[in-house]
Amino acid sequence: MEEKGRLKPGFKIRLTLTANEKFFGPGIAMLLHLVDEYGSIRSAAMAMDMSYSKAWKILRRADKELGFPLLESRNGGNGGGKSALTAEGRAFLEKFDTVEKKLYEAAQGLIDEYF
Amino acid sequence: MEEKGRLKPGFKIRLTLTANEKFFGPGIAMLLHLVDEYGSIRSAAMAMDMSYSKAWKILRRADKELGFPLLESRNGGNGGGKSALTAEGRAFLEKFDTVEKKLYEAAQGLIDEYF
Repeated sequence: MEEKGRLKPGFKIRLTLTANEKFFGPGIAMLLHLVDEYGSIRSAAMAMDMSYSKAWKILRRADKELGFPLLESRNGGNGGGKSALTAEGRAFLEKFDTVEKKLYEAAQGLIDEYF
Repeated sequence: MEEKGRLKPGFKIRLTLTANEKFFGPGIAMLLHLVDEYGSIRSAAMAMDMSYSKAWKILRRADKELGFPLLESRNGGNGGGKSALTAEGRAFLEKFDTVEKKLYEAAQGLIDEYF
C-alpha cells in the first residue's frame, strides 16, 4: 500500500469499570477530582454541567459496587454541606487514573506501530 | 487496605480514531464486518439496529478522513446493490481490530496489576 497521504490517526479511549453494571468511568473520575478541588458535590457537578441528581446517582451506584463510600460529607446546615474523598476513595481514584494513563500510553504505542 | 471483599472489576474500552473529528470506532467497525458478511449496507445496518441514513453518514465521514473508500458498491437495480470491502478498507479494519484486541489485553494486564 502507498505511504503517500497515509492517515496518522489520533485517538480517544473510554475506560469503564464494570461489576454488576458499569460503575466507574471518566465521568465519575472527573466528578471526584472536582469534589476534591471544590469540597462540594453540588459545585463539582455544576462545573462539569452535570445535574446534582445525576451526580448522586452515579456516586451511589459506585459506592454500592465498591462496597465502600468514595466520599464523606458533613452537613453544613442551610445551603448544603462539605464533601471530601475518603481514604479508600482517593486510593481507588488514583488507581483508576494510573490505569487510564498507562492505557493511553499503550494505545499510543499501538497506533504508532500499526498506522 | 484490607484484601477482604475487595472488588475485582471487569472493564469495557471504547477506542475511537480521530482526525479532524472522530471517524472510526466500534460502531463503524461492526458495520463493516456485517457488510462483509451480508454484502449489503442496508442489511448490515438493520442487523445492528442502525438506520440506513446513519450508516451512510458514518461511512461517508470515515471515507473523507481516510482519503479512500472503505466499501465498493455495485448497483443492483431494483431493490439496491451489493457492497463489499475494498482492499484498503479490509486492511484498515484489520488494523483497527488488532489494535483494539491488543488494547484489551493491555487493559486486562493493568487491571490485574492495579486492582
